[in-house]
Formats: sequence, C-alpha cells, structure tokens
Amino acid sequence: MSTALPQDSALVLGTLRASINEIDQSILQLLARRGEVAREVGLAKRLSGLPLFDAKREHGHKDALVLQGKQLGLPGQAVRALYDVLARLGVAAQLPLSHEPSRPRLTPADSDEFRLARAEPGRPQTRVQVGEVEFGSGIFEVIAGPCAVESEAQIEAAADVCRAAGVRLMRGGCFKPRTSPHAFQGHGLAALDWLERAARRRGMAVVTEVLEPADAAPVAAKADMLQIGARNMQNAPLLRACARTGRPVLLKRGAGSSLRELLCAAEYLLAEGNSQVVLCERGIRTFETATRNTLDLSAVPSLRELTHLPVIVDPSHAAGRDEIVHALCRGAWGVGSDGVIVEMHPRREEALSDKRQALTPHQLAEITGDLQGQRVWQA
Amino acid sequence: MSTALPQDSALVLGTLRASINEIDQSILQLLARRGEVAREVGLAKRLSGLPLFDAKREHGHKDALVLQGKQLGLPGQAVRALYDVLARLGVAAQLPLSHEPSRPRLTPADSDEFRLARAEPGRPQTRVQVGEVEFGSGIFEVIAGPCAVESEAQIEAAADVCRAAGVRLMRGGCFKPRTSPHAFQGHGLAALDWLERAARRRGMAVVTEVLEPADAAPVAAKADMLQIGARNMQNAPLLRACARTGRPVLLKRGAGSSLRELLCAAEYLLAEGNSQVVLCERGIRTFETATRNTLDLSAVPSLRELTHLPVIVDPSHAAGRDEIVHALCRGAWGVGSDGVIVEMHPRREEALSDKRQALTPHQLAEITGDLQGQRVWQA
Amino acid sequence: MSTALPQDSALVLGTLRASINEIDQSILQLLARRGEVAREVGLAKRLSGLPLFDAKREHGHKDALVLQGKQLGLPGQAVRALYDVLARLGVAAQLPLSHEPSRPRLTPADSDEFRLARAEPGRPQTRVQVGEVEFGSGIFEVIAGPCAVESEAQIEAAADVCRAAGVRLMRGGCFKPRTSPHAFQGHGLAALDWLERAARRRGMAVVTEVLEPADAAPVAAKADMLQIGARNMQNAPLLRACARTGRPVLLKRGAGSSLRELLCAAEYLLAEGNSQVVLCERGIRTFETATRNTLDLSAVPSLRELTHLPVIVDPSHAAGRDEIVHALCRGAWGVGSDGVIVEMHPRREEALSDKRQALTPHQLAEITGDLQGQRVWQA
Amino acid sequence: MSTALPQDSALVLGTLRASINEIDQSILQLLARRGEVAREVGLAKRLSGLPLFDAKREHGHKDALVLQGKQLGLPGQAVRALYDVLARLGVAAQLPLSHEPSRPRLTPADSDEFRLARAEPGRPQTRVQVGEVEFGSGIFEVIAGPCAVESEAQIEAAADVCRAAGVRLMRGGCFKPRTSPHAFQGHGLAALDWLERAARRRGMAVVTEVLEPADAAPVAAKADMLQIGARNMQNAPLLRACARTGRPVLLKRGAGSSLRELLCAAEYLLAEGNSQVVLCERGIRTFETATRNTLDLSAVPSLRELTHLPVIVDPSHAAGRDEIVHALCRGAWGVGSDGVIVEMHPRREEALSDKRQALTPHQLAEITGDLQGQRVWQA
Repeated sequence: MSTALPQDSALVLGTLRASINEIDQSILQLLARRGEVAREVGLAKRLSGLPLFDAKREHGHKDALVLQGKQLGLPGQAVRALYDVLARLGVAAQLPLSHEPSRPRLTPADSDEFRLARAEPGRPQTRVQVGEVEFGSGIFEVIAGPCAVESEAQIEAAADVCRAAGVRLMRGGCFKPRTSPHAFQGHGLAALDWLERAARRRGMAVVTEVLEPADAAPVAAKADMLQIGARNMQNAPLLRACARTGRPVLLKRGAGSSLRELLCAAEYLLAEGNSQVVLCERGIRTFETATRNTLDLSAVPSLRELTHLPVIVDPSHAAGRDEIVHALCRGAWGVGSDGVIVEMHPRREEALSDKRQALTPHQLAEITGDLQGQRVWQA
Repeated sequence: MSTALPQDSALVLGTLRASINEIDQSILQLLARRGEVAREVGLAKRLSGLPLFDAKREHGHKDALVLQGKQLGLPGQAVRALYDVLARLGVAAQLPLSHEPSRPRLTPADSDEFRLARAEPGRPQTRVQVGEVEFGSGIFEVIAGPCAVESEAQIEAAADVCRAAGVRLMRGGCFKPRTSPHAFQGHGLAALDWLERAARRRGMAVVTEVLEPADAAPVAAKADMLQIGARNMQNAPLLRACARTGRPVLLKRGAGSSLRELLCAAEYLLAEGNSQVVLCERGIRTFETATRNTLDLSAVPSLRELTHLPVIVDPSHAAGRDEIVHALCRGAWGVGSDGVIVEMHPRREEALSDKRQALTPHQLAEITGDLQGQRVWQA
Repeated sequence: MSTALPQDSALVLGTLRASINEIDQSILQLLARRGEVAREVGLAKRLSGLPLFDAKREHGHKDALVLQGKQLGLPGQAVRALYDVLARLGVAAQLPLSHEPSRPRLTPADSDEFRLARAEPGRPQTRVQVGEVEFGSGIFEVIAGPCAVESEAQIEAAADVCRAAGVRLMRGGCFKPRTSPHAFQGHGLAALDWLERAARRRGMAVVTEVLEPADAAPVAAKADMLQIGARNMQNAPLLRACARTGRPVLLKRGAGSSLRELLCAAEYLLAEGNSQVVLCERGIRTFETATRNTLDLSAVPSLRELTHLPVIVDPSHAAGRDEIVHALCRGAWGVGSDGVIVEMHPRREEALSDKRQALTPHQLAEITGDLQGQRVWQA
Repeated sequence: MSTALPQDSALVLGTLRASINEIDQSILQLLARRGEVAREVGLAKRLSGLPLFDAKREHGHKDALVLQGKQLGLPGQAVRALYDVLARLGVAAQLPLSHEPSRPRLTPADSDEFRLARAEPGRPQTRVQVGEVEFGSGIFEVIAGPCAVESEAQIEAAADVCRAAGVRLMRGGCFKPRTSPHAFQGHGLAALDWLERAARRRGMAVVTEVLEPADAAPVAAKADMLQIGARNMQNAPLLRACARTGRPVLLKRGAGSSLRELLCAAEYLLAEGNSQVVLCERGIRTFETATRNTLDLSAVPSLRELTHLPVIVDPSHAAGRDEIVHALCRGAWGVGSDGVIVEMHPRREEALSDKRQALTPHQLAEITGDLQGQRVWQA
C-alpha cells in the first residue's frame, strides 16, 4: 500500500516517525533513571522506618502531574494512566507484602460435577491467551465491538473506533441468536470475513459467537476465540464442537442458570481437553425491570473461590441501555473481574439489533481510558 | 511522623524526590511533544489516504521499545504498558472523538408517584449530614458495626475496632427483626444506651433500626440516624413515625421490592417533610444460591438517574458470608455508590446472629484502608 | 322449587329417574362381572406366559365396540371413553399394584423455628371458624369483595352481588397499604362500619386488613377476621397486636418471601396463643411479566406437608388482571387449597384501586357456581 | 407368540374373551337405553321450567353409585370414571349454553414476533395428533414414562405400568441433557429401539428428546413426537431440524424464559412449516426452594389468550420430588391445560437420574385414574 503514497508525504511521514522514535527512546531512558531513583527512595525509607506507601503523598504527586500535564495540553486521563505505569514500576523491586493465608474454602458438596473446572490447592489459575490479550494475567481487558456485523463499512468504522480506544480483542456477531425467527439473523461467514479483515489490519484479535456444532470449525478458522452465548450455555453438542477446535472459548452464563450450572457447562469444554475457557457473567433473570437483566456482580468473587478459570462481565446485555454501562464496567473491575465485553456501534441510531444498549464511540473511549489495562484487584 | 526521621535520611529522601519530580516533568514534556508529532502524522496519513492504524508497524515499534527498555534494565511489562499509554494518546490526537451530549433521561411514566424523590432538572442532589459524615458529598463512607448489640463489653470492643479502622458512623442492632419469634430479638433501649455511649466516646455517630412506630421517638433521642429495615420498607406507619422525628433515615430496599417501590417508600418519608433520606441496596431475591441474596449493583447507577437521594450498599446481608464482602465493597464503590454498610463482630465465632457474614476486625481494616474517604465516582 | 312442578311432570320425572337408576345398577353389575372375568384372563395369560397387554387385540375390541355402539346410536367418543374405563378396570384386575405406604416426610432442619406451626404426627389439622365458614373442614370457600371500601353505596352493591353468588365471607379494604403516599389510602374505620353493616345484614362475615398495631383492637371489634397483608408479613409488632385480639388472622405471604418465612411469620401469631390462622399464597416476584406476580400454586401442597394450618389462595393480586382469575381459582382448588380470596367490584370501571384485576359480578358468580362449597381435594 | 400357547389355555382364554364381549355388548345396550331416558328427562325438565343441571342431585347419584359399586367390589375410581361417561352422554343432546362473547383480547405490542403462533380471531385452535392422542381436542392427557431409558428390562417394566395406568403416549429419555458431563448421558439410539418396541407392543406412542440437529431425522424415524428440552428452547438450529422432520414437537419452556420467548421459540418451528407443536410449562427459576422450580400454572391460561397451540404441564421437573406431583397434576387440569407429562420409574430406588421426583407405579395409577381422559376446562 505504501507504493500508493506520494513521495513528499512519505518523506514527511518518515521524518515524523523518526521524531517519535527519538522521543520514545528519551522517555525510556527517563523511565530507567526513575526506576533507579525509586529504588534508592525505597532503601532510604526502610532505613528510616518509614512506611513504603504513603497514599496521601502518592495522590498529591499524581494530582500535581495531572495539573502539569494540563498546562502542556495533555488529557488528564493519559497522565493518570502514565502515573500508574510509573508507580507500578517504582515498587517493582520492593519486597512482596506477606499476606495472611486465605482461609481454606469448603469444596461444595456437588463440586465433583465440575472437578476439572474447580479451584483446588496447588492448581494454578488458568491463563487464556487470545492475540495479545492474556486473560488471567492480572490485566483488565475491555473487549468491544458491535452487536452484529451489519456491513463491511460498518465493521471497518467500528474497528477504527475500537482500535482508537485501545481495544485488543474485538467482538462482532456474525450468526445472531434472535428470540424471533423474523428478526435479523446475521450475515454468517461473509460477516466473519469482514470482521476478521477489519480487526487484523488493526492488530486486534476477534471473538465471535457460534450457534451450531457444524459451524465451529469454519468459525475457528477465522476467529481467535469462540463465544458460546447465554442461550446455548447448556447446549452440550455445541460445547463439545467448540472445544474440539482447540480455540479459546468465551462461555456466557445463561440468564436463568446458576453458577454451579455455569461451571458444569465449562466442564463440558474442559472434558474435551480444552482448558482455554473464559467465563462471562451477563445478568440473570429477576423481577426487577429497571435493567433488562440483573447483573450478578457477586458471581465474580464467588467464581474466584470456585474455579481457576478467568471471569469477565458483560454489562451491556445485563443493563439493556447504555447510560449505566460505564458504571457497571467500573463495578466489574471493582469486584475483581478479568475484564468486560461491551457493545459499541459506530452509528448507534442505525443499529439493526440491541440498539438501546450500544455505546457510542465516545462512551467506549471513556471506559477504556478508565479501565483498559488496569490491574485486576485480587482479594 | 517526619519528626522521627533522622535528618540525613530526610535530606536524602528530599533530594531523591526532587529527582523524581524532575524526571516526571521531563516525561510529560516529551509526551506533549509526542502528541503534537502524532497529530501531524495523522494529518499526513489522511492527506495520503493511509489507514490511521497499521498493526504491523505498531507492533514493530512496540517490540523495538521493549528491546531498548531491556537494555536499560526495564521490565517488558512496564514498557508495554507505557507503549499503550503512548499509543492511545497518539490515537486520540489522530481521531478526535466528538463529545456527544448525554442523551436526555426519560422520566418514567409512573414517576409522579415519587414526585418528591425523583431527580429533576435543577433539583440539587440531596446531602444528608450524620455526625461528621455527609452522604452525597462525594466521599465514600464505610458504616460498620455488629449485627446486634449483644452486651456492653461486646459493643465497646466493636467500637474500638471501628474507630481504629476509621469508621465515622457505627451501626448496631438493638431491636432485631428476626424471621422466627424463637430467635434472639435484641436488648432494646438498653442496648441503644450501650451503643450510643461506646460510639460517642470515640467520636462516632450511631445508626440503628426502628421496628415499631412507638419506638421512633425514643430511638431518635439517642441515635443519629434511624434505619428502616428491608422487611419494613413498605410499612407506612413506621415510615411516617420515623420521618416525623426529623432524624436522617436510612431506608433499605426490600429483598422482593423494585426500585420504583423503594422510591415510593422514600416518598412516604419525604411527604412528611423529612428529606434527610439515604437509600440502601441490600440484595434481592433470585434463584441463585451462591449468595444469600443477589446484590443488585445496577441499582446504584439506575437510582442515580431516578432520584436526588444518596445511595449506599449493604454487601454483608446480600452475600451472607464474609469472604466476598471486600470485593462487593469495591464493586459498590466502582458503580458509584456513596458508601457501604457492613457487619463486623469483634469475636465472630461468638456472634448471636448473622455470624456467617460478619467481618473480622482485620477484614474491616482492609476494606476501610482501601475505600474509606475515597472519592465517589460520577458518570 | 319442586312445589312449582306440575304433578304430572313430577311423576314422569320420578319414573324416568327410577329407570336410570335401574340401568346404572345393571351396568355396575356387568362391570363387576367383567372384572372377575378379566382376573381369570390375567391368570390364564400368566400361566401361559402371554404378555398382559396386546395392543392389536385391544384395538380390535375397541373398534368393534364403537361399531356396535354406532348401531345403537351411541357417539363414538362416548364408547371410546367407556372402553377406557373398562380397559383400565380390567388391567387393574390383571396387574394389582401393591399400595406403597407414603414415604415419611422429613422434618426440615430448620423447622424448629416454626415449631408451633409445623405439622407433626398426631397433631390435628387446624380448623378456623369465621362466621359460618370453617377453614380446614374440607369445604372450598370463595371469599370475595372489593379491593377498597369506597363508599357506602358501593359496598352495599358489592354485598348484594357477593350474597347472590353464595359468598359467606366478604372482604373489603378500609386501610389501604399503597405503594405511593399520593394514592388513595382508604376511608379507615368509617369504611369498616359500612362494610360490617352491609355484610351482616346479608348474613356474611367480614375480613379486612390491619396496617398498624394501634388499629388491631378497634378493627377486631367489628371484623370477624383480621388480614395481615403481604407487605406486612414480617412486621412483628403488627403480627403480635393482631394475634392478641384473639380474632382469626388471614396471613398473606410476602411477594418476596419463602414458605419458611411465611411459617415463621405465622409462628409469631401462634406464639401469642392465637392458633386461628389461615395462610394465603398470593404470588411471588419473578422475571415473568405476563402476570403481575407468579402464583406459586405448588406452595399449597408444600404447605400441606409442612403445617397444620389451612391454606387459601389469592389469584386476583397474583394475576393482576381478571381474565385468568377463574382458571387460577380452579387451579387453586385442584392443588387442594381450602379456598380463594378474590376481588370483585360492582362497577369495575369506577374502581379507585386495582381496577384491572377486579372481577365483574358475572365472573364472580361463575366462579362460585363452579367451586364454592366443593370438597377440598386431599392427597 | 400365540403358537407357544398350550391348547387348554387357548380354549380357556377364548371362552373368557367371549364372556367379555357379551358383557360389553350388554353394557352398550344399557348405555343406549340410558341415553334415551336421559333425553326424556331433559324434555320433562324443560317443560316444567326446571334447571337442566342440579349439582346436588348429580353428586348424590354419583355417591350412590360409588356405594353400590363398592358392594360389588368395584373401585370407587372406576365407578366415578364410569359416571362421568354416563353424565356426559346424558347431556349430549341438550342445547348449548349461550355464553357471553369473550372480551376482545389485546394483542401484545410485540406479538408480531410470533405472528404464526399467536391467537387471532378466526384462527382455530391447533390440534396435534400423536398416535391415539389428539392434543387440543379437549381431552386431558397423561404422558408418562421414566426419565431415562436405562435398559430393555427397565423400559419393558415401565411400559407395562404405563399401559396399565391408561397412558397412551409414553416418554423416555434416550439422549440425556445432563448438567455435568460426568453424569449418565443416555444410551442413545439403542435406547430408542427398546423404547419404541416396548411402547408399540402395548399400543402406545412415543415421545423422546432430541439434543442435536443431526439426531432429528434418526429419532423421527422411530419416535411419534420429538421433544425440545428446556435447556434447548432457544437453540434455533435444533428447532429448525426438528421442525423439518414433520413430526409433532413438544416444546418445553426454559426455566429462565418468558412466555413471549417461548412463543418466539415456537415460531421457529411454525416458520419451518410445521404447525404440530405442543407447548409445555415446566417451572421457572425463582427464589423459592421448597420446589426445585416454581411451576407457573398461570402460564396456561395466559398462553390460552396468546396462542392457538395446545399447552401441557410438566409437574415432575418443577416439583423435583414426587410427593406433590399428583396435586400439581390436578392444578394443571384445573387451570385448563391439555395434559401433563410426568416421570415414573418401575423401581424408583434404582433410577439413574432424577430419582427424587419419579412417581411409583401406584402414584401414576392414582393420577391417571383421577385425570386421564377428563374433559379439559375452558374459560
């Protein structure tokens, strides 16, 4: 494609890129120097018996940086994200805090039903690698994309927005499980082609839903992660077919399903020899109508006790409206989930499905700016 | 504390901190400069019809940085995190997202039923002052104390723990609403005397539950805030009696009650001329048995849209077990609540009621250390 | 009415009825004889190792009978129905099923919490007398009346309708527990005067709701039965106050309350020495919106196992609309409840509350015609 | 098989069968005679202005017959069933009661999503023929059989019991949808062979569940009706595959699914051109734990308003224990369902799955004796 570029532009671009490279190297050198100083600070504190962390001082420094950044025209969000990088680096060489051993968790009486999925002493937390994303590594991940892949133009626009927001794993529905047969059912494998191309060109991986055992292999040939939807959580033939592709699987909890049933469904995947499974809480059926479903955020810490599999949250389907999705994403992060999966449409008013809950590009950027790449909280 | 620090160490620390400040300012300046260059890159790309993102090039640059970082002794993780900050900043410069005004919230059709409690344009958020605490002021508050006031010794010990943890508003049940008449029903006004004395001596305010209209006035003479329990949310005579004392009221949502019903219950309080009302989400009845009730954290942002009253969360009763209470407190903070109310027992194994969900003193300190006094997040 | 019958007709009818009696006795004798033969057939088959059933032969015989019936002018449907009676009788003779003793019911682990209300070996079913009605006597009772007593004229008209429909216990709300303080709250004790007079003049007893401990005594002075509404099921002071009046109490299950909690609430009444308690299932909160609440008819046989107290059903509040109330009354009768309580308004379109679920006078008459005074089914 | 019969036994059997034929013809003649007399009774009543029905007299006559039957050694159940045949025949010639036109039902706003399944003026109720059974014909049907087909011996014994109880449509699971992959998954097509043979020899039709699109055709080759389980209610590929076989389909409501979603799932079947669909309510997920799920009997009259498809009820899975299944069957009949489907195991203590809810042979016989072949109540 660079052949199409006029020579002048190419020259300009090359110069600009060289500048960026220089700047980045300078930043790295400063970072290295900062690490050395931080180590000396730690030493001085220990010698004088001062506490290693001083929340007030840290907050003060962060606020000062944000102020200075503002004077330089830098958005506060970017400076806060930078500060988190610096702070984490600063404490990297310090002694790990001794923590009380977690009390022995009682194994539920029926946990033998999900004996492969359950947490056990000595069994490590599972990490699931999808493209650049590693679920279970302690980094909060924001998966985003439109509910349905509606056209090549729409998915290209959506991919631009996702990439700009820092998304590394893009979602998009090619086969749509609709309540009524008269509703739009998705463009199928053609849609997957568009989605894959749009995502790959921008360095993102792809997750998409499979509806039928026969589709598992062709979808796995294109997608990096296969999604089992809430309606199909207990569809054993589909679970088996998806597991056998060897691809990582995103397994959504049924709206009327208990955690035990979710873990038993995961067990179908693990029993096929595929341990690359990420669980997803997406709201359960209750009497409350203020939200479409009731997001069960308690499920996240409960699942942490019960299983070694990563857990993410889908606030878009639970809320059923965009206004509270950001708040629920923060709640998901608060309770310690490994990430969220949200719906965004580049032009929401034209969406063919689930329009009411789609985020705008701006809303998505606010969420990723706030949470993407944050450390996952651990009890 | 700095008085305890030997002068040499203080000097050293001061110097080191100055170095860090300098380094950080240099990084910010580089960042700002990088943003400008990125904008020019974006312009050049658009002029030449190049895609804004080029995954291959970005990966190449990231890998190069990681390599350079390694030579400088920087961990790869830190450099990759830094790169994400840089990339997002660059992207923001290249594709500025137009900020859409948040869509106008629709007033629900039946909101006239809670016309005093509902949010309206121009109606300010209500602030509720209880002792030193001001709900609605943007500070996250951790209310704590035992389920029941069991003895003077117990409540004195509990008050010590609460105060040490930074608690400013202490809870304790004097009249206990028990499911069975054969269970411990509380020590009544005597218990309130103990509680009040223990809390006041340590500078804390007191919140306690009222069960009967006739008790509202005597309880209000001692307590700073009256609690209406979940079972009594729709007990109109009790609501009226509590409102008439003029004391702030903490109104808990019934486990089988909708948000609309909660707001209508609050309306009974407001209709008596008492606007000092704090709402409390405490879990609703669902089919899931992993927790005693299902904490409806979506209720917090939903109530933010619907009402001007502060909202807190009770994770202890919802969870029904202590292990996940900290996670749920962080979730409550994440979704933007004004605080939490938790149960702590100084010697949990001796508790007369709700033993299973009581926090230990250590667990409480971890929660308040994490969250007490944090800023409340706002959408 | 037989006095109005001309003597000739009476004679004719008498003769005809005698013929029918004779015919029916002959049929019975043939049936008994047929059973004996069938037993011998079964014996012969077992001796010769033949299967007890032979579909082809049975079909042949059935077809032959239908044909013969047709020649006698009998509709095929009737003959086929008759054949099923004959075949089942034959089968019963051939394969006698050993009657297994019903399995001993396990006392739930937590039933000590409602030790007075629970069913126990040797503890008789409680009968609750209210006017002419005796709940627990095996007769299905239809309680009816308007949601609210709106005026003297309205309640007089309602009483006429109820009496004409055979109602013996009339309901009517004097103190209304409304969700919003801005809704009609009832005419209080004045309304109770109107209601009592209208019912007594027509020989009906009265049941009405009490909202506040202080009202228990004055209401008990007029009403034959006190109702504790669903919202107040766990309002212990109110339970105690109502129990102490000595009046029978109708205790409605909370929409978010479990059966265990309902029984514990009843225990508050029994613990005050008042055992005249009738329980009422009235729908629980679920995700389904086709009805206002989901009527839990399984609660009736479940409560039969757990308690000695009578159980009735309120289909009006559960359904929230009149169209399906008759069907639900029949369902309530089917599962073995002691009766139903329904809402009827003499001029529904003018109702001040719960208009949507009020029965018309005609609908009420259909229900009582169908069910009032029927025997209660017992397992 | 008759070739294996010794000549003596054959002679005896022949004689006995001749006696039965004679008896049956006599009964028919009496029936025909009774019909004539009943017609004259009706005429006499009309002439003298007497009401056509006199509940008290009818009950008295029924009770007298039962008494007489008892003296002849006839079980009361059989006599009551006979009486119902006689009574229905007796009123066959009478004028249909004019009934008020049902009020026009509002078509729900979203009913276009199930436009083929919805009830519409002029659209007749669908009748679904399966073997001798015709769902929607006004006859209450009891479908029964074991949860799983465990062995040929077990299914033969079960078929004997079912046939003896008057069952005409037998159920049995060949492919079992189990929560955990470690639980018994069924014997597949081999089991279907056993089931089909056992049922056919006894003149019963067969219904069994399909789990996977690829199994639809082979199962349809043997079974008379295909069942879509609750877990698969929204499995569109499975719905389509089953519909395309042309076989009648029994569609169970998901435990977390609304009636609207159930009707939309049925729409997937109808949209494939297969209108032979029977819906089945089987309990929904709620907070109540006294039963495994909460049987939503209101769903039956609600579905009657919304759709032209027959509706049956599965009380076994909802209850999760056998003790209350009979009561729930009567409730299902009361609310007007077209039948029930229940689980029975010939030796319950040996069952491989769902042991706790299986009926004994005796319990099944009590239920069919009570309800099989009864008229379905219509609003």
